[in-house]
Amino acid sequence: MELNEHTHVLIVGLGLIGGSYARALTRRGYRVSAITKEPDDIAYALREGIIAEGAATPDPRLIGAADLIVLALYPHLIPEWIRDNAAHIRPGTLLVDTAGIKTELVGAVHRVLPAGAVFVGTHPMAGREVGGVRNSDDAIFRGANYIVVPTPDSTPEGCALAAELGRVLGFSRISELTPERHDEMVGFLSQLTHCIAISLMTCNRETRMEEYTGDSFRDLTRIARINEELWSELFLSNRDALLRQFDAFETEMRTLRDLLARGDRAGLKDLMRLSTARRALFDKTEK
Amino acid sequence: MELNEHTHVLIVGLGLIGGSYARALTRRGYRVSAITKEPDDIAYALREGIIAEGAATPDPRLIGAADLIVLALYPHLIPEWIRDNAAHIRPGTLLVDTAGIKTELVGAVHRVLPAGAVFVGTHPMAGREVGGVRNSDDAIFRGANYIVVPTPDSTPEGCALAAELGRVLGFSRISELTPERHDEMVGFLSQLTHCIAISLMTCNRETRMEEYTGDSFRDLTRIARINEELWSELFLSNRDALLRQFDAFETEMRTLRDLLARGDRAGLKDLMRLSTARRALFDKTEK
Repeated sequence: MELNEHTHVLIVGLGLIGGSYARALTRRGYRVSAITKEPDDIAYALREGIIAEGAATPDPRLIGAADLIVLALYPHLIPEWIRDNAAHIRPGTLLVDTAGIKTELVGAVHRVLPAGAVFVGTHPMAGREVGGVRNSDDAIFRGANYIVVPTPDSTPEGCALAAELGRVLGFSRISELTPERHDEMVGFLSQLTHCIAISLMTCNRETRMEEYTGDSFRDLTRIARINEELWSELFLSNRDALLRQFDAFETEMRTLRDLLARGDRAGLKDLMRLSTARRALFDKTEK
Repeated sequence: MELNEHTHVLIVGLGLIGGSYARALTRRGYRVSAITKEPDDIAYALREGIIAEGAATPDPRLIGAADLIVLALYPHLIPEWIRDNAAHIRPGTLLVDTAGIKTELVGAVHRVLPAGAVFVGTHPMAGREVGGVRNSDDAIFRGANYIVVPTPDSTPEGCALAAELGRVLGFSRISELTPERHDEMVGFLSQLTHCIAISLMTCNRETRMEEYTGDSFRDLTRIARINEELWSELFLSNRDALLRQFDAFETEMRTLRDLLARGDRAGLKDLMRLSTARRALFDKTEK
């Protein structure tokens, strides 16, 4: 199998990410269909011309016709969906997910995947503070990272296709990580940062802070508007890795606090110089 | 005294903020002069036409001609500069600073301010990740907050003029706070956020994180490129207030960590809903 104009892509879950995939893939000439629970979302996507076909129930014909199924669902719904629709998935079909956690998910998918199907984890590291297909926009993939996560149900060809999908979608950098390394990285880079943003937003009962704030507080709390259904699930599915990140961060904050409490100006400056040097590595790759 | 085209404004310290003041005020027709230690910076500002006159030493004539002196210096240099040049400051001159801390500074200025001069604290809540007059740009003031901080050396007229200066510079919102409340707010909104960004950047020795990151980590660490001379001084000058903010934030992170460790999904969602609601107040006033 190759990705080309004959490839039938079925997107399951037409939200912000699923909708953005649909836009990118339709524009590049693939045949894109979608299954999502809201008939309105299917109607919208058909009207916008970002899918060729769609259904608000798991249509066996659409599932059977798919070469590539993108599961853009909440993590816990992914193994459920595969289990419920296993009979309709053709052998040789490639399934990828778009979830923000992998270790637990990969095990759950393994228990329900039908024989002959291939599953590769993928994590598009892009998003917006608003959800839903109506806010979908594949411009969010430009400059962004995309992680391929091989699983026991992957094949080398499946992993290559999943990586190719990332390039077709417009991601700037494609990497590969094991499920465990993925969850460790994401626990730090994404989940811990969301926890910090939440705590910043909730630790101070002061009103009218918006009148006194500069850009830094706005930047650190932009993600504090958070989808509590999705993120409580992501945090709890990656609990142990995330707790380790809490602890590492708390230890580092303690170090900084102690330097401050002792009035250790030289120590503070050393830490700031390290911070500046490490952040400079990111700036090189900034959008 | 009023702010008008006859007002002589002397900017002391022609860096990012002083330079941005010079651009805004010259464009609006004020007579702007500058004193800064680098002759190159004066030459640059004259060439760019953002000041009418300048000197690389504290020229008594420029000081004596000023109606309004903007002290855009590192905090510890402000009382030193006033002390060293007190003899040249005319009675009735309004002095304002642009420093990010106030309580300690206001006391130090009080001890050296010549009779008849008026001092009002001001804090322009704007900046860039790069410094120097060559990076100055008064567009950074648009949409930003400006805080007026009355001191024992202020007059009602001086405070009104300091607020008017904020409007002339292009700030979107002008507020007034006591020195203590200012430092408490800034300890939370600006200093704690910088400490968090530093700790995020230094707590994980993992290399190649930039390949796996999404926008959230980039947003939270943008300010982790930090001028260690300035910020170590700001932190240490506001040590007690900042330590209190560390403690409040740590307590809140502990609360979130405990919910996670206990697997308390309902509690996590409640905290996220509070976070979302509080952040929505900021979005209303986003640039």
